[in-house]
Amino acid sequence: MNNTYGEIIKITTFGESHGLIIGAIIDGYLSNKYLFENTIQKKLNLRKPFTSFFSTQRKELDKVKIFTGVFNYITTGSPILLLIKNHDNKSLDYNNISKNFRPGHADITYQLKYNYRDFRGGGRSSARETTCRVASGAIFNNYLLSKGILIRSYIKKIGNLKINFFYWKNILNRFFINIFYLKELKEYLNNIKNTSNSVSAEIVTIINGLKFGLGDPIYKKIESLFSNYILSINAVKSIFFGINLKNKNSYFIKDEISKFGFLSNNNGGILGGISNGQPLIIKILFKPTSSTSKNIRTINDNFKEVLSKTYGRHDPCVGLRAIPIIESMLSTIIINKIFIKKIYE
Amino acid sequence: MNNTYGEIIKITTFGESHGLIIGAIIDGYLSNKYLFENTIQKKLNLRKPFTSFFSTQRKELDKVKIFTGVFNYITTGSPILLLIKNHDNKSLDYNNISKNFRPGHADITYQLKYNYRDFRGGGRSSARETTCRVASGAIFNNYLLSKGILIRSYIKKIGNLKINFFYWKNILNRFFINIFYLKELKEYLNNIKNTSNSVSAEIVTIINGLKFGLGDPIYKKIESLFSNYILSINAVKSIFFGINLKNKNSYFIKDEISKFGFLSNNNGGILGGISNGQPLIIKILFKPTSSTSKNIRTINDNFKEVLSKTYGRHDPCVGLRAIPIIESMLSTIIINKIFIKKIYE
Amino acid sequence: MNNTYGEIIKITTFGESHGLIIGAIIDGYLSNKYLFENTIQKKLNLRKPFTSFFSTQRKELDKVKIFTGVFNYITTGSPILLLIKNHDNKSLDYNNISKNFRPGHADITYQLKYNYRDFRGGGRSSARETTCRVASGAIFNNYLLSKGILIRSYIKKIGNLKINFFYWKNILNRFFINIFYLKELKEYLNNIKNTSNSVSAEIVTIINGLKFGLGDPIYKKIESLFSNYILSINAVKSIFFGINLKNKNSYFIKDEISKFGFLSNNNGGILGGISNGQPLIIKILFKPTSSTSKNIRTINDNFKEVLSKTYGRHDPCVGLRAIPIIESMLSTIIINKIFIKKIYE
Amino acid sequence: MNNTYGEIIKITTFGESHGLIIGAIIDGYLSNKYLFENTIQKKLNLRKPFTSFFSTQRKELDKVKIFTGVFNYITTGSPILLLIKNHDNKSLDYNNISKNFRPGHADITYQLKYNYRDFRGGGRSSARETTCRVASGAIFNNYLLSKGILIRSYIKKIGNLKINFFYWKNILNRFFINIFYLKELKEYLNNIKNTSNSVSAEIVTIINGLKFGLGDPIYKKIESLFSNYILSINAVKSIFFGINLKNKNSYFIKDEISKFGFLSNNNGGILGGISNGQPLIIKILFKPTSSTSKNIRTINDNFKEVLSKTYGRHDPCVGLRAIPIIESMLSTIIINKIFIKKIYE
Repeated sequence: MNNTYGEIIKITTFGESHGLIIGAIIDGYLSNKYLFENTIQKKLNLRKPFTSFFSTQRKELDKVKIFTGVFNYITTGSPILLLIKNHDNKSLDYNNISKNFRPGHADITYQLKYNYRDFRGGGRSSARETTCRVASGAIFNNYLLSKGILIRSYIKKIGNLKINFFYWKNILNRFFINIFYLKELKEYLNNIKNTSNSVSAEIVTIINGLKFGLGDPIYKKIESLFSNYILSINAVKSIFFGINLKNKNSYFIKDEISKFGFLSNNNGGILGGISNGQPLIIKILFKPTSSTSKNIRTINDNFKEVLSKTYGRHDPCVGLRAIPIIESMLSTIIINKIFIKKIYE
Repeated sequence: MNNTYGEIIKITTFGESHGLIIGAIIDGYLSNKYLFENTIQKKLNLRKPFTSFFSTQRKELDKVKIFTGVFNYITTGSPILLLIKNHDNKSLDYNNISKNFRPGHADITYQLKYNYRDFRGGGRSSARETTCRVASGAIFNNYLLSKGILIRSYIKKIGNLKINFFYWKNILNRFFINIFYLKELKEYLNNIKNTSNSVSAEIVTIINGLKFGLGDPIYKKIESLFSNYILSINAVKSIFFGINLKNKNSYFIKDEISKFGFLSNNNGGILGGISNGQPLIIKILFKPTSSTSKNIRTINDNFKEVLSKTYGRHDPCVGLRAIPIIESMLSTIIINKIFIKKIYE
Repeated sequence: MNNTYGEIIKITTFGESHGLIIGAIIDGYLSNKYLFENTIQKKLNLRKPFTSFFSTQRKELDKVKIFTGVFNYITTGSPILLLIKNHDNKSLDYNNISKNFRPGHADITYQLKYNYRDFRGGGRSSARETTCRVASGAIFNNYLLSKGILIRSYIKKIGNLKINFFYWKNILNRFFINIFYLKELKEYLNNIKNTSNSVSAEIVTIINGLKFGLGDPIYKKIESLFSNYILSINAVKSIFFGINLKNKNSYFIKDEISKFGFLSNNNGGILGGISNGQPLIIKILFKPTSSTSKNIRTINDNFKEVLSKTYGRHDPCVGLRAIPIIESMLSTIIINKIFIKKIYE
Repeated sequence: MNNTYGEIIKITTFGESHGLIIGAIIDGYLSNKYLFENTIQKKLNLRKPFTSFFSTQRKELDKVKIFTGVFNYITTGSPILLLIKNHDNKSLDYNNISKNFRPGHADITYQLKYNYRDFRGGGRSSARETTCRVASGAIFNNYLLSKGILIRSYIKKIGNLKINFFYWKNILNRFFINIFYLKELKEYLNNIKNTSNSVSAEIVTIINGLKFGLGDPIYKKIESLFSNYILSINAVKSIFFGINLKNKNSYFIKDEISKFGFLSNNNGGILGGISNGQPLIIKILFKPTSSTSKNIRTINDNFKEVLSKTYGRHDPCVGLRAIPIIESMLSTIIINKIFIKKIYE
């Protein structure tokens, strides 16, 4: 398996959905910087499963604690250990499916690949793993903010429901949608839920404040590295850089340049794999949650056919809680690219 | 810069568009295997710029020669050096643009990042670099074929022109399109060319014969690694795994399982980032060629505004010649994944 | 900083000498294997500071606990988290030296490099970090034993005292010396201690059961990789492969080959960086412990000169407890090399 | 196999002893720096086999040519391709041994590991490979000189012959020995040669001008990384950091510190794996050349016993020409460490 990401700063995550703890090790971050648990906690709270009908009813405090690498609230340069206890890890709801391979889930591939698996809540394949990415990313996101780099996202589409974006100030803090669409979205998702269904989500992320020169040409283009990070998020199935190319010809793709800078940003802030100083624009597509309460055909671990449904606590749209994960992964790759750029300056 | 890719077998490419040579070093391939230059040459010929109106008029023989790592036509396990001479590297057509930053090209980002650049034909940022990927990938593609793994692609859309796929046998060998659309495509591209324009391309790649268990969960999911490789190809702006999710709800994404196997393949052969034994399905989007002969605003290296057009020899649709590159990159990542899987068996 | 080692199986260690916990993450080990805490604990007990006059009086239980990656005593393939609590981490003995840079220690280089440091007991530079290497290595050592690979060591020299090796059965289990020298060694070390001094140690390690073909030529020769691992152990200053070459000419270095195998083993089991099926022979030199209770000149963190002595609890010879660390590091590199070899078989 | 070294700047070497060419790719070096072939050629000439009785009679021009990555004598940041033609690659002298496994050589391990080998002159295991390390290292050595970092070496011992070092100005430019010992050394080596023998060599390297803070603690200590690089050189069997510890007690190892700096340098410029601003001191041991003209027992590739001797052209002491290789490897690791340090500054 491979549970490490990052080129200069390396993050290793560990822990299963229903084990005692989950956590992350961060190795290679700067020394002599203030680091408070609260900086991390605030980001975690954004991702935390909450008590609306939008998300899983799993009750997790997601309380993070820093164990190593920080002395008197200051980083020493040593590896930083973050641990988060699993509270609501009773495996009752999953016991009945411990033997069935849930369709659309990784149960069958994990079993075949590893010849053994922690079936409680999907073990390591659970989206609970992404909690640790958010915890680590919070530190880097904070660093980027101090350098004037701002990562913002909004939900563009939930299933068939298109949500128009007008201004950033209209975007609801925790829901990442245009406030005027909240009622419509609730009704839409209610309907999805009542029909035991789940839907996809399309998210747009825009990064302001990046200087030119991030990314390397050829095999470490921004597109290449960013997609590597983003496509590692559970349920992400597609990524898109820049403007919508469909039905467009080349006239639009060539951003003209005046002496005051670029006259458009169809290339979404990237030329030849390198940032050109304009805002980065990324579109990300999540598939619908695979866990729903519909009865569907599958096999069990004796390779007998059964009907299975998931009694667990699940989101009707996994994309709704995904934005802190996206922004954490982007923060991680960007801080790494900034560190590498420093070598050649 | 970074010019190496591959986890177990490492490929390093080098050389500029208008330098003396381009080439690749392959390190970590199997010893004691037959390797003939002709195996590589045949794949190169598929990508070679040819004399139709479809592609650049640059005349390159793309004749590959193996210099090291092979003794009496058998690999020794040592690094394999492939060299290809640049023939048509007169820089005449580019001299007039040596001082202007071509819009949509990497000229400006290279100049700003490296403070110096080989302006002849884009230097290393030219698509000529991909020749070396095809040369290396040919060796791995051949290996995969011997293991029953078949990578095939077709062009689904050129600009606004949708090209229906019926059967693999209808797909034209070198053009990768349904033979019945050839006339229509010619007319369409002629029109694009006559209006000094260029268009995008959408390509579908399907991989048959992959066993379950390729790819690692979490940070080395198939989606993550494949997109890392594919988005490193010049002009690729988007990737998509599995079925088209748009306007679809969760019912479609959960491929039910019978005792004879999966009943559908909406997830495109991947569950939890691991191959599940079904065909892999990938969709790739290329932006339009940035070089066209229209006059557009830009600046020169004194940061003065000028009007610029590209007199060079260019394809109206860069995606048309891209399929051998896609298949080479996929061959490289798959052989690496197969090698890593062997560790745990 | 960099706190990860291992090419296929990656181990990341963390924690400071006087923090709450130390530990390790093991990523990439086999799934579906039994793993008991006791296997690890037994090795840790060998390294544990004990109550003889030989070693530090620091009282640590070194009780290891497995938190993730194991389900019902069986590995799942997920990362394995090992945690060990620090018990005797009262920083009293170190408070008086918190401001002085102890000569021979890493205090000054850490302060200058990181602009901040955890001065309690040396923080991360303390030999306490090696506990985590032993814990991880125990798992791999166990695997190697099951494959017939036996790593054994003995102390050849402590300061000026040469200790003859006769048979493995004469080697004391925990002290790694010829049993007949125990009395002499005690007297020698007593004298060293009474004079507030410390001494070097020379250790010989012999590995039986390695098949040919481990190691790669050129930049990953066995000598290259093994020394990389061994020289990362605190206080190791030299490594030597094969026979003692001094005062010997080439006749001795060319191990002749009969049809029954090699007729000698002067090359210590390696030819061209690759194992040749004979026992591997390595000699390792530890410098004397830098902490002693003699008054010596140094500066404090205001760069004022002071006299300093270490009141802490320290070994007169750090090499005495080092053998479990050596064997753990060698187990780690060997299991990695075995895993890589599997790729090409 | 693995033919790449370097963490930020990566060097990949290729080519066999008796193939058409050997060479290196350098990826990740600075852009916008002058680079002349002559800078590399001068270093190569130091290593070149020459016509004294000291070294192999193989006649090689070792003429290097830069093919990519440099435009108008200035680096572009793209990979730099260096190629060197093999001239004296007639395999006549080796034909008679093509079937025998030369004792002390890598013939047998390569054959067993790869099931096939380029037997001409040892193929890739030949010391000819080190030519490419010297060529690459010359570029970095030049960079280090411009930063005030000076790497110098002398031969301390050849077989039994101890060569005293007095001043750097007494050290012969090309022979790296005290000029007053030249006659004695010639006689000694003549005798070794006449008795068909070969001898070991002990070399001391001292690096001046390193600032504090190079190297990382724990697993990337200077000792760990430098030994990784040095032990990858053919025939190196041991490395030693700092003063000779033998027969010394701890008093000597603790370099006291005054407000003007360290009062001694017994630790050889390293504390806790990090450079402390003092000169680095390294001692390196080469085993005797394995090729001599004595008849010795071995087996051939049918596993039949034969008597074998090497008719080829060989050095009586491989260590004599090794210093440019040592200094090139050290230049490579140091420039990488300087680049990494820049990240955290």
